[in-house]
Order: sequence, then structure tokens, then C-alpha cells
Amino acid sequence: MGAGTGLLRGDMTPVAFTPYRQLLKRTREIALLTSSASMLTWDLETYAPAEAVNFRAEQLAYLGGAAHRKFTSGKVGDLIAQCEQHGFPADSAEAANVREWRRSYDRATKVPPRLVEKMERTRTHAREAWKRAREQSKFRLFQPHLQKVLGLSRQFAECWGFQESVYDALLEGYEPGAKTRELRALFAELRPALGAVLGPAREKSAALPENFLRGHYPVAAQQAFNRQVAAAIGFDFAAGRIDTTTHPFCETLGPRDCRLTTRYDESNFAQSLYGVLHEAGHGLYEQGLPGEQFGRPLGTAVSLGIHESQSRLWENHVGRDAVFWQHWHPVACEHLPDLRRFTPEQIHAGVNRVAPSFIRVEADQVTYDLHIMLRFELEVALVEGRLKVADVPARWNEEFEKLTGLKVTRDADGCLQDIHWSIGLLGYFPTYTLGNLNAAQLMHRARQERENLAAELARGEYGGLLGWLRARVHAHGSRYRPQELMTQATGEPTRSRHHLDYLRQKFVN
Amino acid sequence: MGAGTGLLRGDMTPVAFTPYRQLLKRTREIALLTSSASMLTWDLETYAPAEAVNFRAEQLAYLGGAAHRKFTSGKVGDLIAQCEQHGFPADSAEAANVREWRRSYDRATKVPPRLVEKMERTRTHAREAWKRAREQSKFRLFQPHLQKVLGLSRQFAECWGFQESVYDALLEGYEPGAKTRELRALFAELRPALGAVLGPAREKSAALPENFLRGHYPVAAQQAFNRQVAAAIGFDFAAGRIDTTTHPFCETLGPRDCRLTTRYDESNFAQSLYGVLHEAGHGLYEQGLPGEQFGRPLGTAVSLGIHESQSRLWENHVGRDAVFWQHWHPVACEHLPDLRRFTPEQIHAGVNRVAPSFIRVEADQVTYDLHIMLRFELEVALVEGRLKVADVPARWNEEFEKLTGLKVTRDADGCLQDIHWSIGLLGYFPTYTLGNLNAAQLMHRARQERENLAAELARGEYGGLLGWLRARVHAHGSRYRPQELMTQATGEPTRSRHHLDYLRQKFVN
Repeated sequence: MGAGTGLLRGDMTPVAFTPYRQLLKRTREIALLTSSASMLTWDLETYAPAEAVNFRAEQLAYLGGAAHRKFTSGKVGDLIAQCEQHGFPADSAEAANVREWRRSYDRATKVPPRLVEKMERTRTHAREAWKRAREQSKFRLFQPHLQKVLGLSRQFAECWGFQESVYDALLEGYEPGAKTRELRALFAELRPALGAVLGPAREKSAALPENFLRGHYPVAAQQAFNRQVAAAIGFDFAAGRIDTTTHPFCETLGPRDCRLTTRYDESNFAQSLYGVLHEAGHGLYEQGLPGEQFGRPLGTAVSLGIHESQSRLWENHVGRDAVFWQHWHPVACEHLPDLRRFTPEQIHAGVNRVAPSFIRVEADQVTYDLHIMLRFELEVALVEGRLKVADVPARWNEEFEKLTGLKVTRDADGCLQDIHWSIGLLGYFPTYTLGNLNAAQLMHRARQERENLAAELARGEYGGLLGWLRARVHAHGSRYRPQELMTQATGEPTRSRHHLDYLRQKFVN
Repeated sequence: MGAGTGLLRGDMTPVAFTPYRQLLKRTREIALLTSSASMLTWDLETYAPAEAVNFRAEQLAYLGGAAHRKFTSGKVGDLIAQCEQHGFPADSAEAANVREWRRSYDRATKVPPRLVEKMERTRTHAREAWKRAREQSKFRLFQPHLQKVLGLSRQFAECWGFQESVYDALLEGYEPGAKTRELRALFAELRPALGAVLGPAREKSAALPENFLRGHYPVAAQQAFNRQVAAAIGFDFAAGRIDTTTHPFCETLGPRDCRLTTRYDESNFAQSLYGVLHEAGHGLYEQGLPGEQFGRPLGTAVSLGIHESQSRLWENHVGRDAVFWQHWHPVACEHLPDLRRFTPEQIHAGVNRVAPSFIRVEADQVTYDLHIMLRFELEVALVEGRLKVADVPARWNEEFEKLTGLKVTRDADGCLQDIHWSIGLLGYFPTYTLGNLNAAQLMHRARQERENLAAELARGEYGGLLGWLRARVHAHGSRYRPQELMTQATGEPTRSRHHLDYLRQKFVN
């Protein structure tokens, strides 16, 4: 995809159709506003002094409101309709942008502003209530807020519309085209198979103590090592950086400005390293999007399930692979001398220890998706009206024990652990598992297509893999729907078998 | 001044006059835009990756343009006119806001947009040309650009209007109410008097080698010490922070968010410390402005000459005073053990060494204003058409030698050293000297009014001095014109004698 695809055709003449050009101009302005808001958010998470927050919230509301009004105006609706009538060639960049503008415009305008505002206010209070509830491990403090968020989410879903399940309308916001029925089928396949991997995997890890790799790893040395690894996999520090936050994230501030964060524990180097590999995976996707399409669908990641596939691929398929430590061991020991106590094989075993635990974000690769299935089932039941909010803790604890054998004794370790519901993100969780499945499937295909890939990875050469992902995933932005993209890249839509094959080979054989 | 002065009267009823309320709303929106732009600028100077710059420039142009259009619309002009006709009481907050809105509105609307755009483009090129010219020390590379900047500045001045000197119109942008004739009189007094101080001051410093205090001062230890000093003088870290940049600055991002920067040299602790004291002086002014008036004239610093008085006061009158090192010596030695080689008196002597040198920003307290006088005379002559751009280097070198006895052999050490002209800041330089004079005058008055001030400063107690400055300067924002403010605070407009008395007492006696 050459520079300026959106504006210039193959013959280098700009797209002449005025309504399309007007949409490019309008969406550029919106991108300037929303990316400025991203800057303000990034600073709030990283460096802003404590008392900056109130005015910052006012700035964010103002910029967000201005961007929203610019996009939801009737004028934009008219321009999109004119582009649709004009009819760009089906496989053109223009057609893809118009298709996605339509999708976003409809979702943004079908919900009445007073409902949007109500959700905003509800989220703010629900988030605070959730924080307190988690601190005190008391679900009842959060219960009325979850009830409100759920009610509003259902109203949003009714506005957006759906065919089979009301949950489909929520899913669409995170994973365009995904359907509850299909996810349920995928998960039904996955669940028993994961259970079958878990037994042998636990046994393999049984000899390892819980904090096997504990040591003294100074922050500055971790930073230097992480940076070297991130640069080696292709993260471009001329167009990005890594800072420190309690909750790691990846935030894009512009076409050549991608910000990652991680957190440090001086006794546990793996936390920051795998945090960086995960976020750098997101960052490589963002840095690989066509910059000249920034702010347009073609310059935007296609879905959370695809985004998460990139982070999981680099974190797990690259970073938690045996050859990773064979290659990086000497470099890591130079930065972090306490690692000299371990062989590459021991480090590999330590960072792949499997043992069910309560907290999703600390879960190993085998049990992780069990956490997601639990949330998915509860969410669908809540949204479809088959589960009462008051019954969430009991149902959670019951299902969690069935999945992992562990008894939840504190809601803070159970249904209160994640922020998502408090900020209205119902429908978001399943994209984490889609990410795992997509990662394995993409990696499987990359290994098939690049004969030398295993040898390259063993030598710490990541350019071949990155180039493949750039061409198959990153360069397309939202040109194709997520499942079209997966099919083009791997020959089939998202399946569970590649992930299961990968887990079996790694943890059972 | 209580909370909400702008909106609430003494009887706590909001100002009912609708046009005034509309102006408050409009200027709030403008403040949200311009403060967001400040955030983007701060990041660009501190943390942004190299390649972020192009898109960032586009964001800044967009936000700046939006703010400019919102302020210069005919609607705003009508609202101001209605407020003027309405006639708020002369000493009210509302009257002061309206007076300053009028001043800004007229300056912003009298210049045709195409001239503003032309200046923007010219500045961008001139700045690049200046960088190259300075690197190569070749004035002729910069000469055509300075010619253009000068021509445009004259056109701006003609648009704004003036009575005596065309230079007055430029001055007004940095120091409202200042007149070329008055500055010339002030400087005429100052110049021979400074010359008379310079001889004895040089002699006093003659025994000190140039890098008398050189040592090993690790950056982290400098940061810890600087932070402790900044907190002690009253800089509020809950509403501000200190970062690192090549060119130190103070930037306000919101009513409770003030960002300082400094730079570090591990052999020279004084660079970062006095950088922090200087910028924290600016920061204390910003943090002392009434936050509920943020973005309005009453919440905005009144002039550069007053702003600079705050930075100079804390940097020089506090930080370069003998009692400063008597108090801070033990603390400094704990952070920076290499300082144990020196007595407090030696450190004091070292940071007050007087010796003429080529570079303004490195100049000592006695010769500093000679640098400013040179620039002022050249600027006025250029703007009034009495000096040709081509003759700048020769005139500079001739005058500099008269002032300091030093022969400039490279333009990079002479007329190319400062960025100001390249970015169109003609009329800015004299405010540095006004800052020095105002600082000495305010400090003189504070000592008169607070009997215990000397004792407090000797004990490292700065709350009394800060409280005095808060009440006399900071709290007023732009309620009074700069010279009204000085007269209210000190009993007279800006004079040279307090600064001269201070220098004589410090460097001659």
C-alpha cells in the first residue's frame, strides 16, 4: 500500500469526488482532536501532578464533545450517503473507508445524546464504587452501579439493533461481525480441551516453586534490557517510547508516536519484560498501520481480537518460547546479573509455570482462557436477562470452582477483580481469547509460509516475522472485516485448534 | 480575592449581565483549547519521540487556529462592546477582564489573517536558518530571514498603531504600557552605573578560577536537592513537576498544573539548581494566580517584566544571597558530598563570580543587563529604520566591546546567539532587564514591610516572602497594568536605583 492511498489513485490523481474529500478533511480534524485527547490521557496516566485531574477532565470532555459533534452532524451523514450512492469500486480504499465510516456513524448516531450522557455519568460513579467495593471486597457496594450499567448497556444495544442475541450488539463495538452464537461454539470446543491440557501442564510445573525466579533486578537494568528486546523485535523508538504506570497500556498519539507503559517489581524481572513484550506487540501493530491513513478506517486497527493477537503473539509465541531464552540469556545476564543463577531452560520453565489462580491478569497461558469463558458466560446471561446482578458472586464462585478447582472466598479475588464492567465495557472480554486464538493461528501460518522462521527466531532475528505480520495484518488497517482478514492471512476464520495444538505441544508433550 | 470572583459578586449572586457571561463561557473554551496545546508543546519539549514532530505541528496549528477563530470572531467584539457600554464599576474584576479582553481583541483583530500566516511561515524558515547560521557562525545565512521578520514586524506594528516610536507597538505585546522613550531613559541611567559596579566586582572575583566549584555531582542527587529547595520556597508538587530539557522553561497546563524544566551538568550543580530556582520563581507566580480565573485576564500573569521579576527574585535575591548557602550548606553536602570541599562562603562566592563573557544566558548579575541594553538599542534602531540588517554584526561587535571590553570574533558568540529575532520576538529583550529592576524593587519593599524577613530567610523560611508576593503580585493576575501593580506594591513605578543599590551593596562594598 503506497503513500497517500486514500487521496491518490494509481495514476496519482487525487480522488475527485468532493463529498469523499470533504469526509477526509472532516475526519482529519476529528483525528487532530481525538489524538490531542490521547495526549492528555497519556500524561494523566504517566506524569501529571495529582491535582491536575479536575481541569484535565474538563479538557477531555471538551475535546471529546467537539470530536463527537463533528462526526455525528447531519452533514457527515449526508456526505457518507453521497459516497455510497457514488459507488467506489468494491475493492478500493475509498469503499472500505466509506463502509467503516457508515458503521461508526450509525453506531454513534443511533444512541440519543441523553443516553450517552447518562452512561458517562453512570460510568464515573460506577468506577469509583467499584474501586471502593474491590478495596473492601464487598460486592453489594458495586451491585446497584452494575445494575445501572447493565440497564444502560441493554438500552444501547436496543438502539444499535441486533438479530439473534442482544449481546451481539455490544460485541460489535469491539469485534465487528462477531456473533454470540459463534463465540459460544468456539468456547464449547475450547473448554474441555483446555481442561485436558491443564492436568499434564500442572504436573510439569509442580516441581517449580511459586516464585522460582525471584531475585534482585534493579529497575534501571530491567529498563535497559526491556528496551533492547523491544528494539530487537522492531519497536521503533524514533516513533515511540516506554514509560512506567501501575496498569500497563499502549496508546497512540499520532502516526509516528506510540507510547507503551509497563510496571516494575525489583524482585520479578518477568513482570516488566512480558509487560513490554505484550504492549510492544500492540505497538508494532500501531506502528505498522499506514500512517498516511491516520485517523481513517484504513489507518486504524480493525478489532480488539486482532489487536490482542499481536500482543499475545510477541509476548507468548515469541517471548515465552524456549529459543527466546536460549538467545537472550547472555544479554539478560549482563543487564541482570542475578539471572546467572539460572540456565535458559530454567528461566523458560519459570516464565511458563502453569497453576490455576484467582486473578485473570496473572494467569498462565493454559488457564487464562478459562477466566475469559467464565466472564463471557456471565455477561451473556446478564445481558440476555437470564442472570440477576445480585446472583453474580454466587454464580461466579460456582463456575470458577468448576473451571479451576479453586474456591473463591473474597469477591475481590472473584467478580470484583476487573474494571471492565464498571466502565461499561460489556462485550469486551471475549476479545482476549480471540486474541489468543488468532495469535496461534497467525503464528502457525507464518511458520508454514516462512521456512526459515524457526531458525531466525533462534538467532533473535525478528524482521521476517514482523514483515509477515506487517504485510498480512498491519498494512490493511480496517480495509477488511476481522474474519476476512484472518481468512486472507491464514486461509480460514478464527479456529481454536491452532491454539490448542500449540498449548498441547508446549505443555503436554 | 475569594473563589469565583469573576462569576460571583460579594453577595454571591452570579454576574447577571448576559454578554459578560457569554464571554466567560467563550474564553473558557479558548482556555481549554490553548491549555491542551500547551500540553502538546510540553510533551514535544520533554518526552515526545523524534518523529512525532510533524503530526504534532499539525495538531498545534489546528488547536491554535480554532482558539484564534473563537476569540477573533465578530461576536466576541460585539460582546466586549456591550460590556463596555454596560459599564462595570471601575475597580471591579469584571471591568478589568473587559479592559484586557478589549486590548487582546484589538491586537488580535487589527492584523489581517494573511499577515499572521505570512509571519508564521517566515518564522518557521527563519528559525531553521538561524540554527544553521549559528552552527556555522555565518550571519549572512540568517540575514535575509531577519530582513523578512523585521519587515513583517514593522507591518504588524503599523496595524497595531503607536504614538511615538514604532517599537512601542511591539513592546506592548510583552510589557503592556511600556514606552521606548521611558526604557531608554531607564537604561541611560543604568548603563554608566553598571559600568561603575563592574570594575570593583571583577576585582573581587579575580581570585576565583573560572570553574571554581567544579566537582562530581550525580544527576539523581542534584534532582533530589533541587526538589527539596523548590518545595521549601513553596513550589507545590501536587500541582506541578520538574523535568529535564536542553532549554529550561516553565509552562502552565492548567490551574493546578505547572511544569518546570532544567538541565543537568554532572560537573556543575549550580546550572540545574539556579535553573530550578529561576523557573520555580515563574512557577510560584503561576501557582499563585487565582485558579478560578484561569484563562481570563484576572487569572493570567500581567507582563513579562513582572513574570521575570519573580524568577530573578528567587534565583538571585534568595538563591544567590549569602544566607542561602549558610542555611542550605549541610543539606546540599548530604546530597552532593563533593560540596564538602567548600565552605558556605566559598560556594556563595563561586555562584556570584563576576566576569564579562559573550553569552547572555551565562552572564553574571552585573554584566547581564549590558547584554540587554545592546540588544535593545539594536532592535529599536532596526525597527525605526536607523540600522540596516546587513550592518548588525559590525554594530553588535562594536557596541559589545564598548560595554564589556571583549572583542567578538564569531557571530555565534555575538549577534547569532539568541533565538528571539528568528521567531519574531522583537521587543521582548528589554523585559529581562525590567525583571531585574522589578525584582530588586519588590525585594527592597518586602524587606521594609516585613521586619523579620532577613531572619526568616536566614532560617530557610520562605513562606513570609512568598505570602507577600502572593498578596502584592500573584493574586492580582492582570487586574492592574504592570506599572500600576508596581506602584501599588512598592510605592513607585519601576526604577533602576533599587537594583543598583543591591548590586553595589553585594559587589562593591
